[in-house]
Amino acid sequence: MIHVTIWNEYERERSRPDVAKIYPEGIHGAIAAGIHQDGFAIRTATFDEPEHGLTQEVLQNTDVLIYWGHALHHKFRDDIVERICSRVHQGMGLIVLHSGHHSKLFRKLMGTSCDLLWREADEKERLWVVDPSHPIVEGIGPYIDLPEEEMYGEHFDIPVPDELIFVSWFAGGEVFRSGCTYRRGQGRIFYFRPGHESYPTYHHPDICRVIGNAVKWAAPVKRAPTYYGHHEPLEILAK
Amino acid sequence: MIHVTIWNEYERERSRPDVAKIYPEGIHGAIAAGIHQDGFAIRTATFDEPEHGLTQEVLQNTDVLIYWGHALHHKFRDDIVERICSRVHQGMGLIVLHSGHHSKLFRKLMGTSCDLLWREADEKERLWVVDPSHPIVEGIGPYIDLPEEEMYGEHFDIPVPDELIFVSWFAGGEVFRSGCTYRRGQGRIFYFRPGHESYPTYHHPDICRVIGNAVKWAAPVKRAPTYYGHHEPLEILAK
Amino acid sequence: MIHVTIWNEYERERSRPDVAKIYPEGIHGAIAAGIHQDGFAIRTATFDEPEHGLTQEVLQNTDVLIYWGHALHHKFRDDIVERICSRVHQGMGLIVLHSGHHSKLFRKLMGTSCDLLWREADEKERLWVVDPSHPIVEGIGPYIDLPEEEMYGEHFDIPVPDELIFVSWFAGGEVFRSGCTYRRGQGRIFYFRPGHESYPTYHHPDICRVIGNAVKWAAPVKRAPTYYGHHEPLEILAK
Amino acid sequence: MIHVTIWNEYERERSRPDVAKIYPEGIHGAIAAGIHQDGFAIRTATFDEPEHGLTQEVLQNTDVLIYWGHALHHKFRDDIVERICSRVHQGMGLIVLHSGHHSKLFRKLMGTSCDLLWREADEKERLWVVDPSHPIVEGIGPYIDLPEEEMYGEHFDIPVPDELIFVSWFAGGEVFRSGCTYRRGQGRIFYFRPGHESYPTYHHPDICRVIGNAVKWAAPVKRAPTYYGHHEPLEILAK
Repeated sequence: MIHVTIWNEYERERSRPDVAKIYPEGIHGAIAAGIHQDGFAIRTATFDEPEHGLTQEVLQNTDVLIYWGHALHHKFRDDIVERICSRVHQGMGLIVLHSGHHSKLFRKLMGTSCDLLWREADEKERLWVVDPSHPIVEGIGPYIDLPEEEMYGEHFDIPVPDELIFVSWFAGGEVFRSGCTYRRGQGRIFYFRPGHESYPTYHHPDICRVIGNAVKWAAPVKRAPTYYGHHEPLEILAK
Repeated sequence: MIHVTIWNEYERERSRPDVAKIYPEGIHGAIAAGIHQDGFAIRTATFDEPEHGLTQEVLQNTDVLIYWGHALHHKFRDDIVERICSRVHQGMGLIVLHSGHHSKLFRKLMGTSCDLLWREADEKERLWVVDPSHPIVEGIGPYIDLPEEEMYGEHFDIPVPDELIFVSWFAGGEVFRSGCTYRRGQGRIFYFRPGHESYPTYHHPDICRVIGNAVKWAAPVKRAPTYYGHHEPLEILAK
Repeated sequence: MIHVTIWNEYERERSRPDVAKIYPEGIHGAIAAGIHQDGFAIRTATFDEPEHGLTQEVLQNTDVLIYWGHALHHKFRDDIVERICSRVHQGMGLIVLHSGHHSKLFRKLMGTSCDLLWREADEKERLWVVDPSHPIVEGIGPYIDLPEEEMYGEHFDIPVPDELIFVSWFAGGEVFRSGCTYRRGQGRIFYFRPGHESYPTYHHPDICRVIGNAVKWAAPVKRAPTYYGHHEPLEILAK
Repeated sequence: MIHVTIWNEYERERSRPDVAKIYPEGIHGAIAAGIHQDGFAIRTATFDEPEHGLTQEVLQNTDVLIYWGHALHHKFRDDIVERICSRVHQGMGLIVLHSGHHSKLFRKLMGTSCDLLWREADEKERLWVVDPSHPIVEGIGPYIDLPEEEMYGEHFDIPVPDELIFVSWFAGGEVFRSGCTYRRGQGRIFYFRPGHESYPTYHHPDICRVIGNAVKWAAPVKRAPTYYGHHEPLEILAK
């Protein structure tokens, strides 16, 4: 069984009635409900909990971490960022959603600014599948339509993705690499763009299906830890 | 000096007055004029010439081949396809434009169907730069606007590009991987989407700039031919 | 349940006693035994069967095809090559082993010569894992040692792999990209180098483990067929 | 003209007579001499200079930075690391040599530990070219032989390279991805493995040729700065 921790900043749902109305159980609650059918062991954690709810013990028992944050990026504890990065390097899967692109965590793992273009204009987004052979799009049609979303546009200042799975079209004239995978250490990372807090994106079954598929894809591969350091030669070495 | 051969089917410019009006010197002529300032040694070749104008001698003296075709793909001689592929494998650069995606040549080099979505609706195309560090976009802004073009949409059935440089937005709701690079043998390939014959796309300075940049990028690297076959071991091999 | 067809040329096991001794049930039999524990539905097929044992019906009922060939590449029927390619494009997984690199099938899917360096000198091969996060190396240590194998060396004339999983070291001084993945159409392809017929490579548990892992990785993703062709615009299109 | 700054820690050449004998002008001096013929404007900088010799002004006037460090990685000023990263993001090319893999700079740009296997055993290294079409190998044969070098082995904990150009073979049984490219922001990065201070590696003409080629490849592309932030829609946006 895959152990999933859904982390959510959980600030806007409590400070803004319009967001609370869309996500009465928080974004983490909506995602938990949306991937429930996949049979994962799910726990949630939020910013206000001690150590942001991401203690050493929680992370050690997490196979895949889902991460949503925005307004409090700058207040996220640096030592917890380090702790999460270490776990990714050891093999924990990581799914970064929407505005998580600008989190300390994602920027540290990427090595770039992760800047982009943006606009809040309640405009249509269409996410096109560009890698139909990838397990992350199992059960998904040629595209996913979201009637209203925040726009994110190129250039998105990320490293070249290992795999590019979705490209978004926005009504106002932009495109965006919306579904990207990376490997860091033994861990696999999926960045998935949709999910501004003022739209019911995480109630959309296809969006949840993609997140659930991504959890399965990012779950750690079982093998002995990779070793590094001094290494003895084969006996064949004879100069 | 880089030796460039611009190959054009040159059928529509002669059979359709509307196309002839846009390209009185043919698409090949427009491209030749558009990249003239780069100082290449340019020759052109067309379908109706003997061996489609692509004799062994012509190809041996070509550093980079630019290829535009559409209506006569099925009539292109198979042995000439083989000849071009061999030259690419030896190191000749290849730039495939627009409907060349469905040529025997491109499909053979890709190993896929190269199918896509399409629509002729005189609609706006915006080509976004997604790799701003690439020499192919030297001198190009964040995007190139084409007021009217044919639409090509995803899924584009190509292998995963080695480098993805442009992604197009179309007014009707589609996106497309519009600028893609590949390596095949010692040769480098650039596929560049724009250029339906009924629009003046190859008179656009940015489009020509991209093609000129791509020629420089695709020009062969000077080194001894790679060898293959039986190989002797280092003396160190002692079992 | 994943339906696997193991295709083997099955010529050397019958013409050479030394090979027959190593593979009394054929290479296909050894592989079938080696991946038996994974619970696949396995069938085998060989060159001498009608249509090489790869009828339309067999392929339609195959999720992943494993392919070993060498001496009879040139006699393999072209129409069957086309048939297999079509099925890969539709989503069938393909695992090409060792000398299958020079098959019509693999070369057609790659678009390159697939040439390489080689030497038969009973020398040590060590396959190093360079992507420890990949499901194909589940359960595998930092490397796999094969006491005696045929050498394959770089430059290996393949397209840039989508993923590079193994790199081989050979005692005589060469390296080789030994485990490579590709996507073609909806299908996923894994090339895995080891397995010259005169060595007991396919009796090695780690080699079989990799092949079994690759079958799971290459199994088709369940989704509606991708469509191509003319496409209607969103109503938003208003020029 | 390309402006190159060669940065060297320059510690071992002064503290160890055996190293001083090999590099009487420092590693930076040897590299400067080795790439002299390429016609670059070259300056050098070392650890002991104010701000490590990498002032804002120096970096602003640097097109490509070459970086060699080892013993003093932990003492390198964090603010200078930030400054270099910013310049890379703006488009400055970066060539990281040998033990620079463990510098704060490279690790920050990669987002991984950059750990590896190593051994000092005066053993033979052979660097095989695996991408013969890349401008970085212009003029280089199928491989480069170094009679004695330090061994670096896989797994090398780096992100998947954008391009893999060299793979090393070591006599003691290891392989290594020795020549890797990355893009970060507008900047291009090349990591090149050889160059332990106790061997005359940077006097080898092929090693210098690769470094010179890499400088040309990594030089910034001329275009307007990429912009990020809020973005207005096309007028077409009408909900």
